[in-house]
Amino acid sequence: MHILILGAAGMVGRKLTERLLRDGRLGKHDITRMTLQDVVTPTKPANASIPIDVVASDFADAGAAAPLIADRPDVIFHLAAIVSGEAEAEFDKGYRINLDGTRYLIDAIRHAGGGYKPRLVFTSSIAVFGAPFPEKIGDEFFHTPLTSYGTQKSICELLINDYTRKGMLDGISIRLPTICVRPGKPNKAASGFFSNIIREPLAGEEAVLPVSEDVRHWHASPKSAVGFLIHAGTMDLNAMGPTRSQPWIASRARTSPRASSGCPIRPSSASSLAGRATSSPTARSSSASPPPRKRLTTSSGSTSRMSSAASSQANVTSRFFTRMRS
Amino acid sequence: MHILILGAAGMVGRKLTERLLRDGRLGKHDITRMTLQDVVTPTKPANASIPIDVVASDFADAGAAAPLIADRPDVIFHLAAIVSGEAEAEFDKGYRINLDGTRYLIDAIRHAGGGYKPRLVFTSSIAVFGAPFPEKIGDEFFHTPLTSYGTQKSICELLINDYTRKGMLDGISIRLPTICVRPGKPNKAASGFFSNIIREPLAGEEAVLPVSEDVRHWHASPKSAVGFLIHAGTMDLNAMGPTRSQPWIASRARTSPRASSGCPIRPSSASSLAGRATSSPTARSSSASPPPRKRLTTSSGSTSRMSSAASSQANVTSRFFTRMRS
Repeated sequence: MHILILGAAGMVGRKLTERLLRDGRLGKHDITRMTLQDVVTPTKPANASIPIDVVASDFADAGAAAPLIADRPDVIFHLAAIVSGEAEAEFDKGYRINLDGTRYLIDAIRHAGGGYKPRLVFTSSIAVFGAPFPEKIGDEFFHTPLTSYGTQKSICELLINDYTRKGMLDGISIRLPTICVRPGKPNKAASGFFSNIIREPLAGEEAVLPVSEDVRHWHASPKSAVGFLIHAGTMDLNAMGPTRSQPWIASRARTSPRASSGCPIRPSSASSLAGRATSSPTARSSSASPPPRKRLTTSSGSTSRMSSAASSQANVTSRFFTRMRS
Repeated sequence: MHILILGAAGMVGRKLTERLLRDGRLGKHDITRMTLQDVVTPTKPANASIPIDVVASDFADAGAAAPLIADRPDVIFHLAAIVSGEAEAEFDKGYRINLDGTRYLIDAIRHAGGGYKPRLVFTSSIAVFGAPFPEKIGDEFFHTPLTSYGTQKSICELLINDYTRKGMLDGISIRLPTICVRPGKPNKAASGFFSNIIREPLAGEEAVLPVSEDVRHWHASPKSAVGFLIHAGTMDLNAMGPTRSQPWIASRARTSPRASSGCPIRPSSASSLAGRATSSPTARSSSASPPPRKRLTTSSGSTSRMSSAASSQANVTSRFFTRMRS
C-alpha cells in the first residue's frame, strides 16, 4: 500500500508519518511506500524500511497535484491548510490553499483515469459550525461557519461528498477539534491559545488568556488526532450508504485555565481574532494554584446523517466559538 | 437605482424584468437603469422609459463579470445557472457555470473598490437539502445535497455568506422551490416533470409521470418567484444580525397529478434522473377526471438561524427529493 500525506511537515503530519511507519500497516494492508509532501521539504524519517519520497511543492499550484498522484497512492491524507487565524487575515491566501488546492487535488484524481479511486481523508474542522449553538449539536445541525477558514472547510466537505457520490474518489471528511497541546511555537490558528495556556506556563513563560474562564471548547491531543486519521483511512465507508456524510471524530475536554509554574495567565486586551470577542475577561493569576485541572475524555466514532442514535453523542458544542465569533 | 439581472433571458429573468419595469421602483428607490445579461442576448423590452442595456456574455469567463459591474449596479439579481439535470449530466459545465461563474462575480465585486457593496440576490435552491428528511425541516437542518447542482448552490451560499460577513458585498441567498408551471418546452431540470404533468395535458399532449403519485413537492409559481426575488432585493438584511444566514422563501403545493384534456399521464420506465428513483409508479389515466387539483398556498418570510419561532414555518420537506435521490 502506497500512502501520500499532504502537509506532512506539520505537527500532525509528522506524527502521522511516525505512527504509520511504526505500525507498518494501515488496516489490513502492509505499507510498502510513502510519499510525504509539504510546502517545505518534509524531513525524511531515518531508518525507514520502505521507500519514502519527500516532495516540496505548492499544493495550490494548478499542476502540483497530478505528479503527486501519478503513482496512484492508495490512501491520501490531506492535511495541507492555512490555519484559521491566517486564513481570516489573508483572504486570498486562505481561499487559494484551502479551497483551490483541494479542488485541484480532487480534479487530478478524477482525471487520472483507469478506475483510480483512492481513499481520501480530508481534515475538516469544527469551524464548519457557527454560533449560536444549542446545548447539544446533533448530526443534522447546519453549517454556518463564521470564519473564512470554516467556510473553506465546509465547501471542501461538500465537494468531496459530491465527487465521492459520483464515484470519482473514495472520500471522507473528519472534523478535527483544536489539537492541543501543540509543541513549539504558536501557529496562527485562532484557537492557538488553548495550547499556549498549558504550554507556556510549563515552560516558565507568561500565557495570555483572551477569553473568559467559563469558555468550553473541544480538544484532541495530537496522538488522538492521528488515531482519528488512521481510523478514517481504514473504516468501511460503504456502511454509510450511497451518499456519505462526514462523520465526526472528536475529543472533548473541559479546561480550566490556571497558572502553573509560577507564571501568570493574564487576560488579553489585544484586538486579536480571539481577543475581539472577549466581553469581560477576568484576571487570574495564582502562583500557588495547582497544575491545570483537566478532564480529557476521548470519544471517537462515525455517524452517518441517517443515524439518530449517534446524534446524542455528537455534542460538538463550542462555547469558545460562540463567544469568539458572535 | 441601477439593476443588473444575470440570466435575464430565462423564464424567471424575463418576468422579473417585466415586473421591475412595471413597478418602476424597487423598494423605496426609482429604477433609473437596467442591465440585462445572459448567454444569449436578452430581448430588450419595448417602450421602456429608462435606459436598458442588453449584454450577451459567458458568465463563467474569468473576465465577464468586471464589465458588468463597472457601472456599479446597486442591486444584482443573479439567476444564471445550469439547471439540475444538466449539471448532473455535465459535471464540468455545472461546476464552471454554477460555481466558478458565481465566484468570478463576487470576486469582481470585492475588487471593484471605492466601497462598492451592492445587494446581491442569489437564487439558491431547495436542492441544498438531501434525503432522508424529517417530517418538517427546521431552519437549522443541514445541507447534504445529493446532486452536483445542489452542491454548487450550497457552496455559493457559503461563499456569499463569507463575502458578506467580510463586508465585501451585501448578499442574500434564497432557496427557490420548483417553479411551476413553466411555459413552453421543458428545460433540463430534474424536477421539470412537475410542469409537464400540468402543462402537457392542457395542450392536448401526453405527460410522463416519473414518480409515484404520493410524491409531495414544493412549488412556486413564476409570479411568486419574482415576488420572492423582489422581497430579497429590498428587505432589511441588517435585521438578520452580523452574520446573515439564508432566509427561505418558498411556496408549497400538494399536486395530485391527474390527466386532463383527455390525455393520459403515464408512468415512466425511463432511467432518467427522476425515473431512477421511482419504486412503483402507478398508471393513472382517466379522461373524465377533473382538472389538476392543487392547493397552492404561498408563504414567504425570512428567518435568521437565530430564530426558532420561524423554524416551524420552514417546512421545506420534499418527499420528491427523498424518493428521487435516495
